[in-house]
Amino acid sequence: MKMNEYIELIDKKLDAYMPVCYPQKIFKSMKYTVTLPGKRLRPVMCLEACRMFGGNYEDAIPTACAIEMLHAQTLIHDDLPCMDNDMYRRGRLTNHMVFGEAHAVLAGDALLTFAPQTILKHSKHLGAEKLIKIMEEYFQAAGAYGVIAGQVVDIESEKFSQAGSFDTDDEQLPGILEYIHTHKTADLFKLALRTGAIIADATDEQLEQITEFGQKLGVAFQIADDILDETSTFEEMGKTIGKDKEEGKLTYTSLYGLKKSKEDLSKLIDECFEILSINNLKSEVFEQILNKIRIN
Amino acid sequence: MKMNEYIELIDKKLDAYMPVCYPQKIFKSMKYTVTLPGKRLRPVMCLEACRMFGGNYEDAIPTACAIEMLHAQTLIHDDLPCMDNDMYRRGRLTNHMVFGEAHAVLAGDALLTFAPQTILKHSKHLGAEKLIKIMEEYFQAAGAYGVIAGQVVDIESEKFSQAGSFDTDDEQLPGILEYIHTHKTADLFKLALRTGAIIADATDEQLEQITEFGQKLGVAFQIADDILDETSTFEEMGKTIGKDKEEGKLTYTSLYGLKKSKEDLSKLIDECFEILSINNLKSEVFEQILNKIRIN
Repeated sequence: MKMNEYIELIDKKLDAYMPVCYPQKIFKSMKYTVTLPGKRLRPVMCLEACRMFGGNYEDAIPTACAIEMLHAQTLIHDDLPCMDNDMYRRGRLTNHMVFGEAHAVLAGDALLTFAPQTILKHSKHLGAEKLIKIMEEYFQAAGAYGVIAGQVVDIESEKFSQAGSFDTDDEQLPGILEYIHTHKTADLFKLALRTGAIIADATDEQLEQITEFGQKLGVAFQIADDILDETSTFEEMGKTIGKDKEEGKLTYTSLYGLKKSKEDLSKLIDECFEILSINNLKSEVFEQILNKIRIN
Repeated sequence: MKMNEYIELIDKKLDAYMPVCYPQKIFKSMKYTVTLPGKRLRPVMCLEACRMFGGNYEDAIPTACAIEMLHAQTLIHDDLPCMDNDMYRRGRLTNHMVFGEAHAVLAGDALLTFAPQTILKHSKHLGAEKLIKIMEEYFQAAGAYGVIAGQVVDIESEKFSQAGSFDTDDEQLPGILEYIHTHKTADLFKLALRTGAIIADATDEQLEQITEFGQKLGVAFQIADDILDETSTFEEMGKTIGKDKEEGKLTYTSLYGLKKSKEDLSKLIDECFEILSINNLKSEVFEQILNKIRIN
């Protein structure tokens, strides 16, 4: 499958998996953010990992879509007034701007269980043992050991900032930044890749390879995002730009500067290509993703 | 087991299941609300249902504790400023008053997946098939088809109020009120009872019996809560009293008045006793719970 074919399939399935039942406002609110036009990077990665390790990508469709729902959940709650207080996301109003704060909280809550429920409902043929493995991966990545840990430390990182700048000699900051990027971004990438691989019955060694790939790709993706947050426009990004800097958030560019950020991004992308190549993993889709996040 | 023995066991296990890892603030925030002193009604019901249908209650401990975590999650988010904006719960400050709004949102989010993760981690011996059944019950009750649907309609019910009063001739209001009580309260009761029964390998017929029991007990419990919200004090309830009325929330007492509320509560409790008796279900603990929510 090509990238755009995957994306088309995911969009179709996300729509099909998400009915608008009573009480309609909550289901509409959940569906609004999940179906905002997007790159569908995480579900694509899940389907492609499954295919790459010899599985049938169709078996991974419910899991792939569930991970996009989880991603949307994190966006809805991160955008809330009490968190990042963002008005725009992917060029549209954020969830709480459309449905109100209470419904945005509840829509995020609902997605956290609707996502794994979707997996169980539409993946029965995978068998109970494999479904339990997928559930374990999901809970680990979605909760306080995963993406939420990243968000918590991200919020707390503001306390290290002095008028938007960071003491680049502070020895604990590189570790904190790596922690944020690992959990806030790479954990969902690894979830997508690992569940795709598990569905394809990948070996433990293959799981390790794809986890390392996901870790590096996740951090690379976040560095690219930090760079674009400084150098891009609202029209290009679909969200308010320069807010991280304004609010004194710890980012790759605020700690290391633009030049080193670009160098490290390039190095990580090269390392990702290397992981694919030395393990003889062939994937045009992953090559495309890697080339897309390159910034020269 | 007696009621107070169950409660002691649950309190001990809740503490043991909830470590305080890095980043500590989120784990502390999760644990704060879960371990607030409480009646532990839902976990007790889970353990007792398991025992009553011939199972070993010890097998149900992780599931029982997970349901208490889920219950705490609903309290944390319901108390948020954008929802019910409550400052006190069980006589203590609410989660967001102690940890701030952002952490309260994230602690609730984290509990939604930490709870089922706890089940999977500590109930492996139940086998994958049974664990999947428990997961399905959990997702159904925790999400937009369950407790969240109840909360959404509860919030929306305010629009029917005129200065805190309701048009008692409005034919749709009884149905809406029943919907709120069913989903906001009875769904978690049924989750506790059904998962306990499933762990004990109850038959489909037994599952139906206990579901009907949970539905009636849940509504009875909510009617009792509505009555106490009008007639009790802060010291007795540990939370701000009379707020529902003040905010024009649709409650049993606001729709039917105190007298009929007490009559209907009494009738529901009798029906619960009847379900136990005609199905030859013997449980001192359930009898105690029923007698405790009686209001004369």
